[in-house]
Amino acid sequence: MYAVVLAGGAGTRFWPASRRSHPKQLLSLVGGEMLLAATVRRIAPIAQGEQLLIATGSQLVDVTLAATPSLTRAQLLVEPMARNTAPCIGWAATTIARRDPDAVVVVLPADQFIADEPAFLDTVRVAIDSAARGVITTIGIKPTHAETGYGYIEAVPASGRVWEVARFVEKPGRAQAEAFLAAGTFLWNAGMFVFRARDMLAAIRAHLPALADGLEHLDALAARGDEAAGLAELFATLPSSSIDTAVMEKLATLAVVPGDFGWSDVGSWLTAAELAEKDANGNSAPASAVFVGARDNHVVDLREDSAGRVIALVGVSGLVVVETADALLIVRREDSQRVREVVDALILRGRPGLV
Amino acid sequence: MYAVVLAGGAGTRFWPASRRSHPKQLLSLVGGEMLLAATVRRIAPIAQGEQLLIATGSQLVDVTLAATPSLTRAQLLVEPMARNTAPCIGWAATTIARRDPDAVVVVLPADQFIADEPAFLDTVRVAIDSAARGVITTIGIKPTHAETGYGYIEAVPASGRVWEVARFVEKPGRAQAEAFLAAGTFLWNAGMFVFRARDMLAAIRAHLPALADGLEHLDALAARGDEAAGLAELFATLPSSSIDTAVMEKLATLAVVPGDFGWSDVGSWLTAAELAEKDANGNSAPASAVFVGARDNHVVDLREDSAGRVIALVGVSGLVVVETADALLIVRREDSQRVREVVDALILRGRPGLV
Repeated sequence: MYAVVLAGGAGTRFWPASRRSHPKQLLSLVGGEMLLAATVRRIAPIAQGEQLLIATGSQLVDVTLAATPSLTRAQLLVEPMARNTAPCIGWAATTIARRDPDAVVVVLPADQFIADEPAFLDTVRVAIDSAARGVITTIGIKPTHAETGYGYIEAVPASGRVWEVARFVEKPGRAQAEAFLAAGTFLWNAGMFVFRARDMLAAIRAHLPALADGLEHLDALAARGDEAAGLAELFATLPSSSIDTAVMEKLATLAVVPGDFGWSDVGSWLTAAELAEKDANGNSAPASAVFVGARDNHVVDLREDSAGRVIALVGVSGLVVVETADALLIVRREDSQRVREVVDALILRGRPGLV
Repeated sequence: MYAVVLAGGAGTRFWPASRRSHPKQLLSLVGGEMLLAATVRRIAPIAQGEQLLIATGSQLVDVTLAATPSLTRAQLLVEPMARNTAPCIGWAATTIARRDPDAVVVVLPADQFIADEPAFLDTVRVAIDSAARGVITTIGIKPTHAETGYGYIEAVPASGRVWEVARFVEKPGRAQAEAFLAAGTFLWNAGMFVFRARDMLAAIRAHLPALADGLEHLDALAARGDEAAGLAELFATLPSSSIDTAVMEKLATLAVVPGDFGWSDVGSWLTAAELAEKDANGNSAPASAVFVGARDNHVVDLREDSAGRVIALVGVSGLVVVETADALLIVRREDSQRVREVVDALILRGRPGLV
């Protein structure tokens, strides 16, 4: 049993807390625990130590290890450059298959929140049983609302907990999302996949042969101890493809286990605000903050010397306020998606040090 | 000709920019010039050097001199404790009368904004001519809107520019303020008074004899060079009274010169925001600020090392944002008056260092 945690994301939606050099998975956006650390902790009953691999970018190695003391360098799959998810998952499958081609691999994004951890583990174990029988299996989240920001998986319900995937659906419009919610057969695609290493490699061979060739080359390099030396050159030749569109959507048979465990992708400051613990006025903030006639605000103070300081909100509602050593963001909760426009503006202004 | 600038104010309405140790008159709230410095500069054509006195509190001496390099210690009337305006103005009149009892004295608050400075000086000169004829004279501001936050002076219009005061009126309600504006005979009381030193002392003798006794004692001390030694003890015995209610309102004859020179008391962050220069979206802010879908916001960054930092506002409107080394205030413009509640809360929480 192996787990691979995808921790290469950059992301600008959580600026100024997230930076290119300190991305979302290294933030404590919910309940004080870093998202990556929570992901590693949650999957530990299934895989840890040598059975746990963390895929990340070369520029994130130091900060990832510093932020997650339980990890060692040997557990990292360090991508020399970002090539989307297919090369990364293929490389993980290749690496694990060298040890045990029948090993079941659980792939998890590093930057999600899960409220009901026993239910999550239970769902993963159902998916593992399915994958162990040779069927690539994904976990789909039962929708709680008509979300237009996620991709969906249409499933064919079965009597058991393992359903068959009918198709993948791109982010829907409002009306379509409402219909999906009502139908009960559409699940959110959360990017969680479970498979035997050999099955994933066979699927890549069938649907993305250019990647399969590259992975065999990489495997040969690794077998003679030259992987580190040849990795950068070879990785650059791999097709930059999403595992969803290049492989998963083309499979004749794909299983899905519906999951209902308080999942969130923590996609924006709005979501972080919604998940935060709040006082009677709906505010979440450091204890030192002062509120006067202010409701439903989410205040994050990431300054190292914040103890002697105070943040005071008067008469304002529905704001997210994020303070770091070099930046202050004030955003209306509903406009959280527009935070990336600040990052764009800073780059245009020649202030890349701030992003 | 003398001018006395009243610069003893404390004030919590401009927290966190203003503090007990750094009050409003020392802030650059409009156009980058400190209010006290602007007041001193504006009156310079009429009085400067030895003819200009600044009344302030003992705890503000160092910061006032540091902030206003044109002033010397000899120009300060340092009140050992706050005793409202009557003792302060009486002390100034006593001090000036020792040099020249017929000198005309212009009393000005230190913390007001005036847009049309030539019109202001012209008005002051009319008031000086009136005062030189032995009539205590105030300057009343022609209302531009139905303000409920100021006291009013009802005047009896005359053919010239010097009118007679009928009565002082406390801050009115909304309907009354509308009526005052429509009547055209009501002026805002801006706390500007012009008088011969001897006339003010006579008025104090007539209407506030306890103060007159104290001032005579103080004058005797000063005449023999002992003022500094006896000041604190004597000042504590003076009645803590407002010159308006204790003297001005009781005078049988008081003149008022209507003034129309773009006056503002800069009474709150709302006013400061209104007076600030704005960009096409109504925002006023440091050039480094980033606005995304944000309108009508007023951003003040008083941190010494603000150059490397950025303040970004996304989707918010009508906010005042003030950042200092130890505090961040975010207030809806219309709730600016409630900023003092933050100061109250900080004192209650045992954080007096922040106020």
